[in-house]
Amino acid sequence: MYQSSKALDTEGMMFHPGNIATPKGFQAFGAHGGIRRRRLDMALIWSERPAVVSGLFTTNFAKAAPLILTEQVVRRGRSQAAVINSGNANALTGAQGLADAEAMQRMVAHETRIAPELVAVASTGVIGVPLPMDAIKRGIRELVGQWADPHYREDVAGVNASQAILTTDTTAKTLAVRVSLAGGPVSIGLMAKGSGMIHPQMATMLGFFTTDADIEKERLDAIVRQAVDRSFHRVSVDGDPSTNDMVLCWANGASGVAVKTPEDEALFAKALTLLAQEGARMVARDGEGATHLLTIRIGSARTEHDAAQKARTAARSALVKAAVYGRDANWGRVMAAIGSVGDAFDADRVTLRMNGLLLFDHGRPVDFDEERARALMGEPEVVFEVDLGQGDAEAEAWGCDLTERYVEINAHYRT
Amino acid sequence: MYQSSKALDTEGMMFHPGNIATPKGFQAFGAHGGIRRRRLDMALIWSERPAVVSGLFTTNFAKAAPLILTEQVVRRGRSQAAVINSGNANALTGAQGLADAEAMQRMVAHETRIAPELVAVASTGVIGVPLPMDAIKRGIRELVGQWADPHYREDVAGVNASQAILTTDTTAKTLAVRVSLAGGPVSIGLMAKGSGMIHPQMATMLGFFTTDADIEKERLDAIVRQAVDRSFHRVSVDGDPSTNDMVLCWANGASGVAVKTPEDEALFAKALTLLAQEGARMVARDGEGATHLLTIRIGSARTEHDAAQKARTAARSALVKAAVYGRDANWGRVMAAIGSVGDAFDADRVTLRMNGLLLFDHGRPVDFDEERARALMGEPEVVFEVDLGQGDAEAEAWGCDLTERYVEINAHYRT
Repeated sequence: MYQSSKALDTEGMMFHPGNIATPKGFQAFGAHGGIRRRRLDMALIWSERPAVVSGLFTTNFAKAAPLILTEQVVRRGRSQAAVINSGNANALTGAQGLADAEAMQRMVAHETRIAPELVAVASTGVIGVPLPMDAIKRGIRELVGQWADPHYREDVAGVNASQAILTTDTTAKTLAVRVSLAGGPVSIGLMAKGSGMIHPQMATMLGFFTTDADIEKERLDAIVRQAVDRSFHRVSVDGDPSTNDMVLCWANGASGVAVKTPEDEALFAKALTLLAQEGARMVARDGEGATHLLTIRIGSARTEHDAAQKARTAARSALVKAAVYGRDANWGRVMAAIGSVGDAFDADRVTLRMNGLLLFDHGRPVDFDEERARALMGEPEVVFEVDLGQGDAEAEAWGCDLTERYVEINAHYRT
Repeated sequence: MYQSSKALDTEGMMFHPGNIATPKGFQAFGAHGGIRRRRLDMALIWSERPAVVSGLFTTNFAKAAPLILTEQVVRRGRSQAAVINSGNANALTGAQGLADAEAMQRMVAHETRIAPELVAVASTGVIGVPLPMDAIKRGIRELVGQWADPHYREDVAGVNASQAILTTDTTAKTLAVRVSLAGGPVSIGLMAKGSGMIHPQMATMLGFFTTDADIEKERLDAIVRQAVDRSFHRVSVDGDPSTNDMVLCWANGASGVAVKTPEDEALFAKALTLLAQEGARMVARDGEGATHLLTIRIGSARTEHDAAQKARTAARSALVKAAVYGRDANWGRVMAAIGSVGDAFDADRVTLRMNGLLLFDHGRPVDFDEERARALMGEPEVVFEVDLGQGDAEAEAWGCDLTERYVEINAHYRT
């Protein structure tokens, strides 16, 4: 899972298969409360001390109840715990939904002896059904029961937490990075959840980062915002923005190492961005029914904004996605998609490659070897690389192929 | 096909199963040139005299060659003929593509003894492959050969033309309306083509209107623009805007009846809009792999613009479309879709019905009868009606369900 990121290791930065419990002073837990039949359905993230917290939330007007509470936590800027459930989004559940989210917050605060204002709450799952509060209560008691467990292991517990937040995802998504700052090493851990309703601007995407670095709230806010802009905002599974998306990042300073110098800040931001991009790729690769990771790379654009918009549009195109599934090097669909948004371009200056194979050369279709193209599209990742011949900005976006299985999942299961 | 529009018949307006050859002074032809293996692949529209012409074109930057020529025809404002081929879009084909489109225009002009400037050209089909000009030539000769056929029948020929412009469509899309103006009756005929790459802002959608009314270019331009805004711009099959879309409307005045008074103009505009909306519904109903027509009606919005944007977003949502296919009354997906765009709203004022069944009532999920909902979703048309409780504007948009068949068509055939 993290092998693709080995290439990311650069001086002062090492990616490894850790999780949100990897940074010092953080613990994570997963439990089965009974919202879902058998699978783990509740997670707790715990910091040994109140941490600085940054966050980004869905722009959907039909914002779920837990997001309203958690936005307040992030605005105040300090958090020590998060409780997350899967199987029920607590979205479009009216006043009852807000009362239920507050009850979750209070229960965790009470059991862990901290102020409710320090507890973030997140939910994901079916929309418009009241939370089964008995199951939630059982789950919270179960989570807190593990808290004092002398056999606690961060690797097991962190993985349990990352499994408990999944819905139709097929694999847990965790990764960690260690960065050497001027004052010493710090760690950043990630767990994410994606699968359906995944789309730029925070679709049903949950992303949780923890770090033991010591950093000010304002700096962390800016770094998290930019990292998410370049990662989770560039992944699309089906173009449906959700009611429940959020990304949170806690920094508890437990490493004793501060992000001080501009060099530290740049390195820390780079590590967090690369980690977020790997998370975004994991989410795209595990899109509902997906068999391929689809990467669109737009180069030689006038602005990063334009390149990102074009890349996202092609990565979410149903026709491009279906062609990737069918291993059909139908580059015309990519061109049609990027031509539909953003700045104008001159097709005569455009070059397009698929996994390195030239398909369209300065406005002219190339008479390429179809069998070779088909073989290249057998790779687990299909990369369309478009050079606009305009400027020096670039951007990537990630998606997955569209398969019969996606339709089955979303037609026949209520999510 | 036109039965659903019976309800549209109002005073002074009668819908009937005609086509673009129905209005006086128009003829239409379909032929097999050999671009496609067996199916008709070329159409000719002919007016006995130069007609006023209005048109709208794709906003895609990767605009196909024929559109560049036809935009010039529309800008000049007069046209007497159109030649259309399916099977090849002549898009992203460079300088050769433009030369080929011009050759089509010249051939038709030469064979029919009119100026090339009066000939509109349209293409639809695979992108990035040069036009097979031998097949095009054969097709044009075949079309013009029918021109002087003494056994010409407008019903047969009009249907042939409407079949020749199809790609993955399963049925031809034609309809006509007769309107009684102050000076007497006029007719408007329509043929359209949709299926894949269908999306607001002129996706691969071809729509051709003919009318024997006598009307000025400026008035016709305005009427066509508004009619298309309220019809073809509100239909989405897969959200992919295409390189080749256009809508053209010829008015040749052959009825001898002018659109004169404001009453005439309002009635003519209403007839053209209703005809265009029925065309849009036919296109949506016949979306690739579709088994349901999906209608989203947003009411009590602040503005028509906001209502239309929300309706379009829900009608194109992959999750809503998959739920309709699975006959799952998953109204939360509709709310999530409309919450992602346009103006903010308060969920507590929102009411949502599916085929008349109340599912969400002023912010509260309704405990509805799932079996009843499932039965209602067995209807060929599924209508989600959302009342925002904000104002008095409204809008509709149309789409279709998302099925395994859509994926098969687009993964395994090159379109």
